[in-house]
This record gives sequence, C-alpha cells and structure tokens, in this order.
Amino acid sequence: MQGVPPERIRALLALARDFRAAREVPKLLAGRTIANFFLEDSTRTRTSFTAAAYVLGANVVDLLGGSSSVNKGETLIDTAKILESQGVAAICVRAKQAGAAALIAREVACPILNAGDGKHEHPTQALLDALTIADAFGRTDGFDFKGLTIAIVGDVASSRVARSNIAALTSLGAKVVCVGPAGFVPRSLESLGVAVTDELDPVVAAADAIMMLRIQFERHGGPTTASPGPSGASQGAQGSSLLTPTAAMGSSQIASVREYRAFYSLTHERARHMKPCAIVLHPGPINRGIELDAEVADGPSSRIMEQARNGLFARAAALAHIVTMR
Amino acid sequence: MQGVPPERIRALLALARDFRAAREVPKLLAGRTIANFFLEDSTRTRTSFTAAAYVLGANVVDLLGGSSSVNKGETLIDTAKILESQGVAAICVRAKQAGAAALIAREVACPILNAGDGKHEHPTQALLDALTIADAFGRTDGFDFKGLTIAIVGDVASSRVARSNIAALTSLGAKVVCVGPAGFVPRSLESLGVAVTDELDPVVAAADAIMMLRIQFERHGGPTTASPGPSGASQGAQGSSLLTPTAAMGSSQIASVREYRAFYSLTHERARHMKPCAIVLHPGPINRGIELDAEVADGPSSRIMEQARNGLFARAAALAHIVTMR
Amino acid sequence: MQGVPPERIRALLALARDFRAAREVPKLLAGRTIANFFLEDSTRTRTSFTAAAYVLGANVVDLLGGSSSVNKGETLIDTAKILESQGVAAICVRAKQAGAAALIAREVACPILNAGDGKHEHPTQALLDALTIADAFGRTDGFDFKGLTIAIVGDVASSRVARSNIAALTSLGAKVVCVGPAGFVPRSLESLGVAVTDELDPVVAAADAIMMLRIQFERHGGPTTASPGPSGASQGAQGSSLLTPTAAMGSSQIASVREYRAFYSLTHERARHMKPCAIVLHPGPINRGIELDAEVADGPSSRIMEQARNGLFARAAALAHIVTMR
Repeated sequence: MQGVPPERIRALLALARDFRAAREVPKLLAGRTIANFFLEDSTRTRTSFTAAAYVLGANVVDLLGGSSSVNKGETLIDTAKILESQGVAAICVRAKQAGAAALIAREVACPILNAGDGKHEHPTQALLDALTIADAFGRTDGFDFKGLTIAIVGDVASSRVARSNIAALTSLGAKVVCVGPAGFVPRSLESLGVAVTDELDPVVAAADAIMMLRIQFERHGGPTTASPGPSGASQGAQGSSLLTPTAAMGSSQIASVREYRAFYSLTHERARHMKPCAIVLHPGPINRGIELDAEVADGPSSRIMEQARNGLFARAAALAHIVTMR
Repeated sequence: MQGVPPERIRALLALARDFRAAREVPKLLAGRTIANFFLEDSTRTRTSFTAAAYVLGANVVDLLGGSSSVNKGETLIDTAKILESQGVAAICVRAKQAGAAALIAREVACPILNAGDGKHEHPTQALLDALTIADAFGRTDGFDFKGLTIAIVGDVASSRVARSNIAALTSLGAKVVCVGPAGFVPRSLESLGVAVTDELDPVVAAADAIMMLRIQFERHGGPTTASPGPSGASQGAQGSSLLTPTAAMGSSQIASVREYRAFYSLTHERARHMKPCAIVLHPGPINRGIELDAEVADGPSSRIMEQARNGLFARAAALAHIVTMR
Repeated sequence: MQGVPPERIRALLALARDFRAAREVPKLLAGRTIANFFLEDSTRTRTSFTAAAYVLGANVVDLLGGSSSVNKGETLIDTAKILESQGVAAICVRAKQAGAAALIAREVACPILNAGDGKHEHPTQALLDALTIADAFGRTDGFDFKGLTIAIVGDVASSRVARSNIAALTSLGAKVVCVGPAGFVPRSLESLGVAVTDELDPVVAAADAIMMLRIQFERHGGPTTASPGPSGASQGAQGSSLLTPTAAMGSSQIASVREYRAFYSLTHERARHMKPCAIVLHPGPINRGIELDAEVADGPSSRIMEQARNGLFARAAALAHIVTMR
C-alpha cells in the first residue's frame, strides 16, 4: 500500500464494491489457477484468498509451509519460479520475512499478491478495511475519506495490518490516530502522516472508526491457546509478562496483560463513550477479553463480520486486477 | 441422527440412491464453495466430503487442524463465523468435542454438517451404512428395515459411528443388537431401544448385518501404526493392554488384544456361522486381524467397499439437502 | 519407465507436445476428480500434478502424509481402495517405498500414476526431461534421440529420477553416460545400457545434455535448510561429511561437500567447456553452489524452467492417457 496512488486504491475498492453488488461475480479467471504460497500459518487469509479465486472461476493450488520443498533449502524465489513455470496465473505470498512478496515479484514474471510479509505490509487487509469503513459512512461512491478520524490501537510498530492501513487510509484522506504505549506506538510514526498518543480515552470519544489490533502473544511469549471469556480473561492472563524487559516502553511501563487491558483495551465500559455511529474493526483472530471485550466484538458497532465478507470481494478485486489488467 | 424423524432419513437415503443411479449427479451446488473445517485427523471422511462436493459442482476449501488460527486461541465459533462471512455455502465440521457441530450451528446462519464430533455422532456414516444395508436386502424403495437384525460389535459406548447408527437403524425399523464386554457395551444402552449382550456367537448366527467397530488403539494406549497381517496380528499385539484398569469391564475381564480377539473379533472361523445372505460392515480404517480378519474384510459377505462408494452419494445428498432445501 | 515400449513413451511425449501447443488443453477430465496420495513431502511434483489435473478440467483431492489414516495403521492398499470407491478417476501416488505405486496398481481397478516411489522410479520426471531435451535438439517430431549423448551426474544409484531417465532415454535411442564416484555410480549400472565413469570433465566436453542430480543431504546427514549463495556455499558446508563411512566409495573417497564439489559439481568454470548448444537440466530443488552453480542454473544453457513448464504438460498427458485411453 505504501506508494500505491490513491486512484489505484479507489479503483480496487470500486471493483470490490461492484463484485459484491453483482448477482454473480464475473468469472474473469475461469480456467486459470491461483497459487497460495503460504509459509506462515494462517486461517482466514488463506481461505479468503481461496474463496476469492473460486468466485472468479479460478482453481487453487496450495503450497503451505509444512509440505514445501522450501524445507529442503530451496529459496523462495526458486519455488515461486517453479509455480510460475507450472502455469499459475498469480501467486499469493504469505511469508515471515518483510519484503518477501516484493523480492519474488522482482524475479518472476507472473503477478504476485502480498498476503502478508512479516511486520511489513498486508495490503488486502487494508483494502477490506477501507471498504468496510466506506460502507459505514456512505463513502462508496468516491471512496473519499476526508473528515473521518480513524484510530488504530495496539502494537502499531510491529503490525503489518497497521502499516498497510496507515498508507491506504491517509492516502484516501482520513485522519489516522495511532494509540498505544510508546513501545508499541513510537513518536517516529508521525513521519507517516499520523497522530500519535498513549491515551486511549480521548480518542475513543472522537474517532469514527476504531481498529483494534491483535495482541501478538506469539511474539511476546504469553499464552497462545487460551481463548478466555470476557470476565475471566484478565485474571487468567494477569501474571504473564506482555513485553520483554528490553522493549522501550517510554512513559507507559506495562507489566502485565491486566495493566495493558486497563489502558488500551476496548472494554464494554470504554466503548460506551464512542460516538453513536462510530464502528469497531479488528483484523482477527480476536483475543476476547484482552484487547477487545466480547460484548463489543459481537455488539452493534462491530463490523468484524463485514470485514470478513468484504475480504472476499477485496481479494477478488485484487486478484482480478493483477491478472487481467496489467 | 438422534431426533431426526424417519421420514427425513428416508428422504436423504432416497436422494443418495437417486444421485447414485443418475448418469451424472445434478450440479446443484455449481459455483458454491463448501468448507471442510476438520480439527481432527481424518482420511476417508474428508476426502469423501470433498468428492461429494465436487460431484455436486461445488468448490472446496479445507481448514484443517494444523493450519488453523484456532491454534492462536480463536474459538471454533469465531472461525466458523469467518468462514460463513467469506461466503461458503456450508461447513462440514469434524471436531474432538461432542456437540461441536451443534454448538456452531446455533451461532452461524450457514448450514453445518456434522462430520463427526468426538464420541457423540457421525450422522453421514449412519446414512451410508443404512444405504448399504438397504441395497443388500432390497429395501431401497421404502427404506423400511422391519425384520432385519443388525449387530454392532465392539466399543459401542465410545463410538460415534455406533451412536448414529443406533438412532438411524432403530428409527428405520431394524432390530439392533450391541455386542461387547460390559465396559464397551453397558446395559444402559438398552434405553436407546437396542438389545445388549456380551456373547458374540449367537448374534453372528442370527444377524442379517454385522457392523464391526474399529478398536480405538489411539484411545486405549495400544499400537497405532502397526497394520499386521491376519495371522501374525494377535501375536504381535498380544502383550498390549487394551483397556485401562479403571475401565469397568463387568463379567468380561479382557486383559489383552489376544483375549479380545478370542471373544469379539469376526474371525474367518466365526464368520462361517453367519446366515448365507448376511453382510459385514466396518467404518474403517480396519485393524485387520484384530477386530476383523482379512479373509472376512475382503470376502464375499463384506460390503466395506460399497460403504465407501455409498459415502460419496450419502454425503452429496446431505450437502445438497442442507444447502438447497432448507 | 522400465519396460514401457518406446512407442508408448513417444505417444505420451507427442500428447504432451500437442497439449502445450493448443490454445487451450481439451477438458478431457471435466467433472472427474484426481487424487494426490502423497506420503512423502513434495512441492513441485504435487503442485505440478494438481495444475495438470486442472488444465484437463478435473478437480483434485489431496491425501497427504500427515493428515492420513495411514497413520492409524491402515495399509496403503486400503487407503487407495477407499479413494477408488469414492469415485476418483485416478490416483497419483508418491511414497517412500520402492514399488508402492505398482503394489497399489495390482490391487485397485482405477488407474495409478507413479509420482515417485522411493529410489525406484519417477516416470513423469523422465517424460518431462525427454520433452525438454527433444525441444532443444529439434526432435519433437519423432522423438528419436539417436546421436544424442546425455550425462547424468551425481548419486545415480539412489536416484529415482536417474533410474526413470536411463530407461526412457536409452529406449528413445540416446547414449547415456552416468558420472560420479563409484559409491554413487557403480559399474553394475552398465547392465542398464549406460556408460559409467568417475571423471566429469571429459563428459562435460562431449555431452549434449547434462542432467545434474540433487545431492540428497536429507539422506547423507548434511544440511537441509541452508540455501547458500554460490560463493559462500562450499565454505558454509565444507565441514559436513557428505557420505557415511560405510558407503563404498571405490577409488574416489569423498570426505566433504568441498571435495565433492571439486570433482562433480557443474561449476561456472566447468560449464565453460560445454558444447555450444549443450543444455543443463536439474530435477530440483537445486542446492545452488553445491552440485550446480547459480550462474549455470540461471544461465543461457539452463533448461530448468522449461522442465517445470513441460512437467505440467507431461503430467497432463500421463493423466489423460491413463484415465481415457486404457
């Protein structure tokens, strides 16, 4: 999303909107095969790309981490070249390394779609988020986001979702505010054209859309399998240290999930202070009761299911675009 | 299958029969996508559902245990909702927890097909078994099983295959006899409308169909990878304790596979006492030489391959029914 | 490939060539389902078979090692029979055991395609290699390889790729020379109608096509994940013992990757002595800088990408043949 001109973003959003409105999505990729080259675990992104390929009439071949010759020492690029030689129409790449999709795109002729590269970008997530926001605020004609204030809350610095959203949303004219402790939301983010703060409450009261990021327990050494209910959550996780001692936390020294939750979770209580028409987004999977209360995730301001539905059409638009229009 | 009215079961069986008889199954799900949401290992069930979706013209997206964000702490329901939002026409759910499919069905609007939930139910297996029995005894017009005696042999208490079959077969009018040691076949099963016994030989002589259950070595701590030949089988496994000491075994204290085999295996010798037209079923995968001798599994009374073939059409009928007719 | 008459090989090559030349491959398998029954890890072979099934209009169901009931002690044959009963049109079998595909083919009625069985055969690889060689030397009319000298370099004795290629290429009339230390290329290979030598340089100067085999670090205890660049490669791996002490190495005692590389790698330097029109093949995945330098793999004499592309059409030809023409 960084460097993509706003007209391109708007054209993709309009295509996604039109696909969604159609009685049937045109089979623009009938008889073609799309490859999912996913070297990092994923549920919703892979199934979303797969469903998107199917609505366009394409077939799908999966090349996932565990079953891959990449394990035999083959490079990313070699594998992508092989897929290309096998005649796939496009490759959707998910990898742990920032820049992996771009690296591959420079070396192969077939279109590459970045399905998430480390902490760098997740552009189709930004597309579906923008479409969801446009729906909520009647901006689906011109996809002009002027006058909208959008908060991104959590570990912005290491979030590819945040990075792609910042690029897309600012490009479409929105005001973006990043909220979190200084270790998650450093001042330097201001260079991306966003506001930065460590206080959530004033932002909740002012934002039109609040995008809650997932706490990445996988990266911070906390629980990865528990899915606690809303009330028991903070108790269950309270002892786990969320951040490593070396993380520069600035003024907000956060020692535990309980403390993080007190300051930066969109709790049921806190959500009451949202503007009446404001909406809540989350890229999923949600840690219910940690960064987002179940009552909010499942409540009337939540657009999380719309995000998943829009993901189908946003990804279909991206696939159709890169395969047929370049 | 518990609580499904017999007319519904008969309608599904008739649809499966008609699909099978058609020169080509009607593409009732053309352009639709079916999700396999399988959180428990499976071969034949997943490939059977996949093949069933394909014969109806549908596409398939797999969401299997290992690759799932369910590992990131996302709940079953969240994942199912995401799949629904991504536009799948139905979700086939296989899970370790009894009630998982029903739980999901209460929370999502899209149709859910139970592909096996713990020790609870495996309804499409009962459908394919009923179709196979109906074929053997000329009951494919009305699917009326009156006058048929069907034995279910083995660990009935913890078998979802047995539970679904008991519900379906008794509902269709058959007499069902459950056979096994008291730890596997407790008296309390009589409340389901079946007869209970710990003596196999009289049942073998009287039954029209004998359904052998798989010994679940996975659950009882025995061998899981060996696939011994018929003669060497009992020797190889003789030392392994089949049941934990805490299992209430009633009068039949079974200390080893060899002893179990002596009493409850359908051996080549024992099978000679079957009625001339009686048939043998097994849900697979078979432990040849343990609960069923290879000579019987591959012999003229076996309907095991017919079961697999009927599974394709039974599952296609179930999928077509839940997607198009509700 | 062993025992396949040359007319059959030529017919398959001609079919692959015609599929490749067609504006669209005829949908000979429309509405059919192909099973990939892969019990050994693979990237390119599985995706190639999948893409081949798709171009013929077929659907694909994957049954891979990890997710298989074969883990529950079910035999290869039982699983294949179940797949057959579920109505698949053909089964592509990849297994660690030599003879697995042939074993299954004797027991099931549906067509079986060997996608690699241990160290025994990999027939579709030989087909795609022969098509690639035919392209390079204008032999795509009659696929007569008389007058061509083809070198196979590396661990020929334990390579299924080599075994199938030796059978196919000699059958088509080529002269085949196997090159490697005596432990990799024993004299006994001469009984297959090939020449044998442990000196690479004279062969490089004389060969029309040089097929470099992959060093199987997986089997010899060396590195499996490193993919070093061309210059750093030998340094990085120099300490690892390539061969076990028990391997009979004949006159060429090879103690390290560095030494192997000195004698049997197709280095940039060595490749300069190739005939002007000679080509380089590699079945992949490549250990760049070990058996093949990056400059050669990516250079003008390399036909590695053509191999991958031809794999699609060779496999489509094999699938169409076994499903429709027997």
